[in-house]
Amino acid sequence: METPDNTPEAPSPTGIAAQDWATASADPQYRAAVVDLLGALAYGELAAFERLAEDAKLAPTLGDKAELAKMASAEFHHFEQLRDRLSAIGAEPVEAMDPFVAALDGFHKQTAPSDWLEGLVKAYVGDSIASDFYREVAARLDSDTRSLVLAVLDDTGHASFAVEKVRAAIDADHRVGGRLALWARRLMGEALSQSQRVVADRDALSTMLVGGVADGFDLAEVGRMFSRITEAHTKRMAALGLAA
Amino acid sequence: METPDNTPEAPSPTGIAAQDWATASADPQYRAAVVDLLGALAYGELAAFERLAEDAKLAPTLGDKAELAKMASAEFHHFEQLRDRLSAIGAEPVEAMDPFVAALDGFHKQTAPSDWLEGLVKAYVGDSIASDFYREVAARLDSDTRSLVLAVLDDTGHASFAVEKVRAAIDADHRVGGRLALWARRLMGEALSQSQRVVADRDALSTMLVGGVADGFDLAEVGRMFSRITEAHTKRMAALGLAA
Repeated sequence: METPDNTPEAPSPTGIAAQDWATASADPQYRAAVVDLLGALAYGELAAFERLAEDAKLAPTLGDKAELAKMASAEFHHFEQLRDRLSAIGAEPVEAMDPFVAALDGFHKQTAPSDWLEGLVKAYVGDSIASDFYREVAARLDSDTRSLVLAVLDDTGHASFAVEKVRAAIDADHRVGGRLALWARRLMGEALSQSQRVVADRDALSTMLVGGVADGFDLAEVGRMFSRITEAHTKRMAALGLAA
Repeated sequence: METPDNTPEAPSPTGIAAQDWATASADPQYRAAVVDLLGALAYGELAAFERLAEDAKLAPTLGDKAELAKMASAEFHHFEQLRDRLSAIGAEPVEAMDPFVAALDGFHKQTAPSDWLEGLVKAYVGDSIASDFYREVAARLDSDTRSLVLAVLDDTGHASFAVEKVRAAIDADHRVGGRLALWARRLMGEALSQSQRVVADRDALSTMLVGGVADGFDLAEVGRMFSRITEAHTKRMAALGLAA
C-alpha cells in the first residue's frame, strides 16, 4: 500500500522491458534468471502460506484467526500462479524453487515469532521488503513476466490489518513499541544476510541484477535500489510507531 | 470418494427435508439446530485448514508440501462459504462456532500426529468420518441448508492422495501398518468421545438428531447411523491395508 505501483525512477520500457517473453527468452541467460526469480518468488509464497497459517494459531480471537487463514490462502493462490507459469515456460517448478529453500527456511527459522504481535510485524515487514524488491526488479523484466510478478504482489490486505493491530497494541502499552522496534531491526538484518547468500549462489539471477544482461542493473544502481528499500522500510516503521 | 453422494437408505424428502430454509426456519428450534450445525462445520473447516497447514511442514518433498497447502486452502474456502451462510441467516459466525472450539481443539490436541504418515491417516480418517456424519444429517435438512452442506463436503482430493501415500509406505515396510492401525483406532476413540461431549452440551442439535424435531432421527436411528459410520470406517481401514 505504501509502495506506489511504479517507482518514480522507473524508465519507460526499453531493451528487455519492451519485449514479450517469447522474444526475451531467446537469450538463455535471461531465461535462467527469470526461472530463478519465479522459483524464489514461488517458494516465498509457499513459505508465506505456512508462516501465516502458523501465526493463525497465535491469533487472540476466532475473527483474527479467520483473517490470517484468508491471507494464507491468498498466498497459496499466488504460489499456484507462479508454479503454473514455471510449468508453462517448460521449467520444473520444484527444481526452480529448490535453490531458495535453504535461505528462506533459514530466515524463518532464525526469526520465529514468539507471540502474535511479533508474527504480525514479521509478516508486514517481510512482505513489504519482498514487494519493494520484486517491484524494482519487475521494471526490468519482459512484459509477460512483469505482469505476473506485479499480479502476485497485489496487496492481500495484510498490511492494513497488521498496522491497525500493532498500533492499537502500542497505544495500549508503550513498552511494546520498544520491543517490536528491536524485533523489526533483527528481521531486516536477517533478511539482508539471507539475500546476500542467495545472490552469491545464483549466477544468472545476480548477473541480471548487476548488469550482465542488457538493460539489467549496474552495480551502482543495485546500491541505490537497496537504499530505496531501506528508506521505505524506515518510513513504514515510523508509520507503525516504531523507531527503525 | 468411498461414500456415495446419497446413502442408499435416504428416504425421498418429506417434512423438513421437503421444505426450503424460509419455511423450515420458522421453527425456532430447527433454526437453532442449523446454526449449531453450520457453526460446528465452519469451525471444523477452520481447524482442518490449520491441521493441514501444520502437516504441510512435515511433508517429505516440496511437491507433497504444495499438495497439502492446496487442500488447506480448499478447506479455508469451505469455511468462507459456511461463515457467509451464517451471516446471511442472521447468525454471528464467531458466536456460532464458539461452542465447538473446545471439543475440536481438544480432539486435535489429543491426537497431534508425530510424523507425516500419522498426519495423513488422521486427515483421511477424520475427514471421512466427518463427511459420513454430515451426509447422514444432510438428508434431514431443509433443501437450502442441505445443498450447502453437501457442497462443502465435496472431496478436496485428500482421500486419494492419503491412500496412495500410506499404501506405498506400508508396502515398503510392513511394520508401519501395525503402528498406523493402532493410531487409527486411537483417532476413532477420541473422535467418539469428543462427539459425545458436543451432543451432551448442545440441546437444539441433539434434539434434532434424536427426533425432537419433526422428521429428525429417533434414538434407534441414531444408533444405526453410528453403526453405518463405524462400518464405513472399518472398510476404509481395510482398503488402506490397516486392520481397524
